Amino acid sequence: MALLTYLTTAHFDFGAIARLPKEMARLGISRPLIVTDAGLVRAGLLERVTDQVEAGSSLPVFDGTPANPTEKAVMAAFAQYGEEGCDGVIALGGGSSMDLGKAVALLAGSGGPLDKFDPANKGTRNMTAVAPVIAVPTTSGTGSEVSVGIIIVMDDGRKATFAGPKLIPASAICDPELTLGLPPLMTAATGMDAITHCIESFLAPTENPPADGVALDGLWRGWSALKRAVDDGSDREARWNMMMASTEGALAFIKGLGAVHSMSHAAGRLSDLNLHHGTLNAVLLPAVLRFNAPGQEERYARLRQAMGLEPGADIADAIAGLNASIGLPANLTEMGLTEARLGDMVPYAVSDLATRTNPRPVGASEFEALYRESF
Amino acid sequence: MALLTYLTTAHFDFGAIARLPKEMARLGISRPLIVTDAGLVRAGLLERVTDQVEAGSSLPVFDGTPANPTEKAVMAAFAQYGEEGCDGVIALGGGSSMDLGKAVALLAGSGGPLDKFDPANKGTRNMTAVAPVIAVPTTSGTGSEVSVGIIIVMDDGRKATFAGPKLIPASAICDPELTLGLPPLMTAATGMDAITHCIESFLAPTENPPADGVALDGLWRGWSALKRAVDDGSDREARWNMMMASTEGALAFIKGLGAVHSMSHAAGRLSDLNLHHGTLNAVLLPAVLRFNAPGQEERYARLRQAMGLEPGADIADAIAGLNASIGLPANLTEMGLTEARLGDMVPYAVSDLATRTNPRPVGASEFEALYRESF
Repeated sequence: MALLTYLTTAHFDFGAIARLPKEMARLGISRPLIVTDAGLVRAGLLERVTDQVEAGSSLPVFDGTPANPTEKAVMAAFAQYGEEGCDGVIALGGGSSMDLGKAVALLAGSGGPLDKFDPANKGTRNMTAVAPVIAVPTTSGTGSEVSVGIIIVMDDGRKATFAGPKLIPASAICDPELTLGLPPLMTAATGMDAITHCIESFLAPTENPPADGVALDGLWRGWSALKRAVDDGSDREARWNMMMASTEGALAFIKGLGAVHSMSHAAGRLSDLNLHHGTLNAVLLPAVLRFNAPGQEERYARLRQAMGLEPGADIADAIAGLNASIGLPANLTEMGLTEARLGDMVPYAVSDLATRTNPRPVGASEFEALYRESF
Repeated sequence: MALLTYLTTAHFDFGAIARLPKEMARLGISRPLIVTDAGLVRAGLLERVTDQVEAGSSLPVFDGTPANPTEKAVMAAFAQYGEEGCDGVIALGGGSSMDLGKAVALLAGSGGPLDKFDPANKGTRNMTAVAPVIAVPTTSGTGSEVSVGIIIVMDDGRKATFAGPKLIPASAICDPELTLGLPPLMTAATGMDAITHCIESFLAPTENPPADGVALDGLWRGWSALKRAVDDGSDREARWNMMMASTEGALAFIKGLGAVHSMSHAAGRLSDLNLHHGTLNAVLLPAVLRFNAPGQEERYARLRQAMGLEPGADIADAIAGLNASIGLPANLTEMGLTEARLGDMVPYAVSDLATRTNPRPVGASEFEALYRESF
């Protein structure tokens, strides 16, 4: 049975951040906790937000979001939320800040601990309420501003995915203006995250044709815009299209994702390496696309169309070529990941939520082979 | 500013009608008015619905839906809704029954007269509440089960469009099983309505890339399935894809439609002719596609991709070819419409809501030329 749900509202355009006061009023937020990271504060992006709000400079800010959000950081931000008497969250940043902010709002609405929401134990039904969240992305990749999910590195070392309709931010303000200053390498890495979302969600076997269409539009847009955005960060049209591809990728992955994300999550949890999620996706995508190809002729043909490739062109090679042209590493080894960590990753990839929606069944031996192909 | 809203929930698959009792309970409907037409009752489709509900045969039924729903019929059904003490609507049928049922629910929730909701006078804000509607399509074309609009021929002769998020049915049950008996000509005519929705909404200048993607997926699906569904009504895969194309077309036209619909509405209001909406769209589409082509190279290229046409192929010719191959008339003259009625149609086309979102400005003289080209 195909269950089609249209889920969220996003205000999307250059200057959209000016809507912040309206959205706060609409959602009854008078004292938000702004969840972000120190780099964004230094980059002046926090001010871009607080300038929109009366007495914005007096709003409580949690800027301790780690590169990969941890349960520990979530609990610290949640404590601040309570101490400051907050009534909502403004989640400002990339996927890490947005996911952390969404987690704080979940705890504020439904109580803790985080683990009780684990989908592996049907925890989604414990998401009874969520405090209002206004998500403001400053990268174009994660799409967390419209997604049903959050990903947190738990105290026990798992990189856990929590998902449920209530986790969709009550409001998303997508202002490409906020991405104009994003450095080339971050533009490339986050952009490949968006492209991976579009490709993996389109290939997920879940029956949801509207989401398929959204994924292909996002891929069409992102594929033609990413290199331009990397080469010239001030290319406003490319920035607009990358942010839209990011939003569309996340709207589409209501279908679920696939083996790239399973492997990426399993590697991203290695706290000593602190690897970037989008970069991992970019590096892992070619091997997984080769693995998933059998029986996917029609879907791969539609991917080629969206990417403007010739009929029969090798999509995996095209991805590897784009990675190289935008300065991303060619393999996991270049990222500092070694085969010695295989045992540390494979079991986590097997049990990752995204594994359930990979178009081709994939277990421990397949994951090991896919990692080896990517070293 | 692109405003992206994901709006509705549809239960979609063969046998989905079995969900009816669950959906009634979820929406708190204990005594629905079933709005349908006499033909569907004769075809046994009413029973297919009432068989799902305890004491279903005792439910009040309004089966007086005309081929094009009129204000008069809406008021008659609304009177029955009140007399029977109904608390919701099951709208069963094609676009006419579903639009009429949605209109009854609107009057039940926000009071009358219908005219006070006219968007031309900002009437949408008068849609304060709408009684719960479960929409059950029995054709694959209108997509009214997920759409924000209803179209009613008013007592004063206008074919008026009312639109607003509250008009989206609270529940849509899309069961392709209910379309297996649809005769070839109705399959063709309603199917071209769905295809026209996908094409016109994709070309509408409104900024909504996710809706663009949904429209192209619907076109891709409908274009390959329609002739198969016409040639063999029992082709379940083709029926499934046509119903999905219909749903996707309506999800997409949140962007708005275009000149084909303006002209089709203006002709459909001629009560002496009682012309079929989908057939009018099919016949008018080629001329409008030729008219809209200038400056649309990229969008037309994406339409060709979705339709599997060669680069540079004439889309208008392809549509005319499909029309001929599925037994639809080649022009308005064959439908019994004559140039003598031009004065009766052009002004209504100019003022139609869909005219605002045609990609190329279109006024009285252009509409007259487009009609003449279609005679």
